[in-house]
Amino acid sequence: MQKLISLEEAVEAVLGCVQSVGREEINLSSALGRIIAEDIYAPLDLPPFNRSPLDGYAVKSGDIARAAPDRPVELEVVLEIPAGSYSPLELKSGQAVKILTGAPIPSGADAVIRFEDVEVLGDRIKVFKPLSAFGNYCFRGEDVKKDELVIRAGSLINPSAVGMLAALGFKRVSVHSVPRVALVATGDELTDIGEELAPGKIYCSSLYALIAELAEAGAQVRSTKIVKDDLQLIAGEIAKALKDSDMVITTGGVSVGDYDLVKDALDSIGAEVIFHRVNIRPGTPTLLAVKDDKVIMGLSGNPAAALISYHLIAKPAIYKLAGRRNYEFESTVGILENDFNKSSKQRRFVRGQAYLEQGILKVRLTGKQNPGIMKSMLTCNALIDIPANTPYVKSGSQVKVILLNTL
Amino acid sequence: MQKLISLEEAVEAVLGCVQSVGREEINLSSALGRIIAEDIYAPLDLPPFNRSPLDGYAVKSGDIARAAPDRPVELEVVLEIPAGSYSPLELKSGQAVKILTGAPIPSGADAVIRFEDVEVLGDRIKVFKPLSAFGNYCFRGEDVKKDELVIRAGSLINPSAVGMLAALGFKRVSVHSVPRVALVATGDELTDIGEELAPGKIYCSSLYALIAELAEAGAQVRSTKIVKDDLQLIAGEIAKALKDSDMVITTGGVSVGDYDLVKDALDSIGAEVIFHRVNIRPGTPTLLAVKDDKVIMGLSGNPAAALISYHLIAKPAIYKLAGRRNYEFESTVGILENDFNKSSKQRRFVRGQAYLEQGILKVRLTGKQNPGIMKSMLTCNALIDIPANTPYVKSGSQVKVILLNTL
Repeated sequence: MQKLISLEEAVEAVLGCVQSVGREEINLSSALGRIIAEDIYAPLDLPPFNRSPLDGYAVKSGDIARAAPDRPVELEVVLEIPAGSYSPLELKSGQAVKILTGAPIPSGADAVIRFEDVEVLGDRIKVFKPLSAFGNYCFRGEDVKKDELVIRAGSLINPSAVGMLAALGFKRVSVHSVPRVALVATGDELTDIGEELAPGKIYCSSLYALIAELAEAGAQVRSTKIVKDDLQLIAGEIAKALKDSDMVITTGGVSVGDYDLVKDALDSIGAEVIFHRVNIRPGTPTLLAVKDDKVIMGLSGNPAAALISYHLIAKPAIYKLAGRRNYEFESTVGILENDFNKSSKQRRFVRGQAYLEQGILKVRLTGKQNPGIMKSMLTCNALIDIPANTPYVKSGSQVKVILLNTL
Repeated sequence: MQKLISLEEAVEAVLGCVQSVGREEINLSSALGRIIAEDIYAPLDLPPFNRSPLDGYAVKSGDIARAAPDRPVELEVVLEIPAGSYSPLELKSGQAVKILTGAPIPSGADAVIRFEDVEVLGDRIKVFKPLSAFGNYCFRGEDVKKDELVIRAGSLINPSAVGMLAALGFKRVSVHSVPRVALVATGDELTDIGEELAPGKIYCSSLYALIAELAEAGAQVRSTKIVKDDLQLIAGEIAKALKDSDMVITTGGVSVGDYDLVKDALDSIGAEVIFHRVNIRPGTPTLLAVKDDKVIMGLSGNPAAALISYHLIAKPAIYKLAGRRNYEFESTVGILENDFNKSSKQRRFVRGQAYLEQGILKVRLTGKQNPGIMKSMLTCNALIDIPANTPYVKSGSQVKVILLNTL
């Protein structure tokens, strides 16, 4: 039995084995969810010109400094500028320009009086109150200044980032390529969905859950394979999977029984096993190997165990491969809503549902915690980190929590 | 000027105008992110048989009740059952069956002793300690019972749901169709990305941000159009957009200026305007109209205002169209990290970044709050709901918060 390493050592080991994949240039319209590959500096000011935030009249604030209800100031309307127009006109004293929301404020004007605040008399307006300099005036560059760093390399392109890149006129963006992952599910008991379930068989749920998790993490699953418990077959499938992917994930075959063959298969193809067992529960028999600078992660055959060790150990590696700047999970604390009474020598990660109640993070257990139980994964959005040898945790206690979908 | 309605009235109005779109059957492998259209009852027990959680020997617990280190019990190993196998054998007293993780426990056996806890002598084993009945024994149906309601209609299919559906053998699932949305961006000032920016023009950032938001909300954008400030053109594009979509969203042209034409365009095509102004800031000039049982939402031309009113008013409608069970946003509270000193007669939604600190929700302002400012949207994941006529909010105060990406 090999020495168990800690979760933190396991994560460090796998992160040490992966580098971000290459980059490519794509259209902004397909960039949602991708990871930006370069720092984005603004190629222009936002807004690109001094702009009116409302419909009104651009004026010189000095002209109306003494305007009052009983002593209105009259100005001559010399031009109208709708949004999208531009005039090189230089406003002179005594003049006003009718201007609409979003239109450039003409040079010489330093304030915009609302429509509602003037009286229109043909081509003249009466102004009844003063407006300070730069009242209702949006400055060129007040949002973003040209050459300002706007989005850092390694950021996820979310809808707001798409909006910002569009505002700056980017039609193409440089992003990291999508990491390619191959999945190899091992086990004589596995049956693919759509097939009849013979006695003693189960459906290969982890395979489908992992395909979905990988898609959410920004990876593409290049190939999936269900393989019998046969050393040659497993070795052959892993070797094949390595050719066309950046990472291989296996499920099953990593315990210590007679039919736990993934480690032997990896040895037989010359992969170097970095660690085999991690001091967490579930997910103890998680395995990391490297071949041709590519990582093979062996996860448990139990679906919940496979998914939990995926979240804790494999996902940070996927994030790093994908080029994300932040790839390690973060812990916070929450208040446990139930008693948890199972002690173990190992650190446990317990399935929970985190929620906010009056701004306080709370977490309730989602049900049975055995490594083969799927139902408690369904509503699980958080893992509760319970230290080794903790005899029990009373409801109301503060516990360490890892949120699976970050805030 | 029409009466301003409250945000809650606006949301209720738009939700009252939409029904969930139809349903379709798709492969489980494409179901991630879709909304399930029917309650899912388990067609089988999970696990489908009594199962061993480890590698060991299936025995009758009664046979080893008196086993002790100095008085081991010997049993005859009559069979080996690997995972994926099945035997109709009925275990008799004095017998054991070698059994591997995940394999069905043969009938007659009621406990599984670990490999590590026995001594093997040819086809016999020595057992040194007792094990209680159903020790190391996973019951058929202990995860999910046949006919149990597992996933409710209207749930988002996340990776765990994919795993559960796979575990239950679903190859096809009934999901709601993807709502089709058409976007019409109005404004003479708008320039598409990739084109040269003439003086007085800006790039149509809201269009691209909304395409991305809609994709995240589970809608597909069927068509996008940038239209000049021309009543005929706008009316024509909205009419065309209505034909091939479940909902139309416009940006710009909803204020009260001479060139704010969306309402007139809607009148001209016989759409019924349900409301035009909402008592929130930004996003006051949000408009709702209905034609042919389809909803047209008019959002502000200012990108941040458009996005905020999208989140508050349009997104719940998209969620309902998409068939989600929960479609209304939920508020929580958080501690404000900055002073906020702008008062207004209207209820304000201020851009913030929410984060957890020691399990407490905190929120910091993300920058300038003018409706045209995009940079403060970039890191915004929460809207702070500040009541009308609030003179200031001091840092450290508790504020109402709407999280844009739920926990």
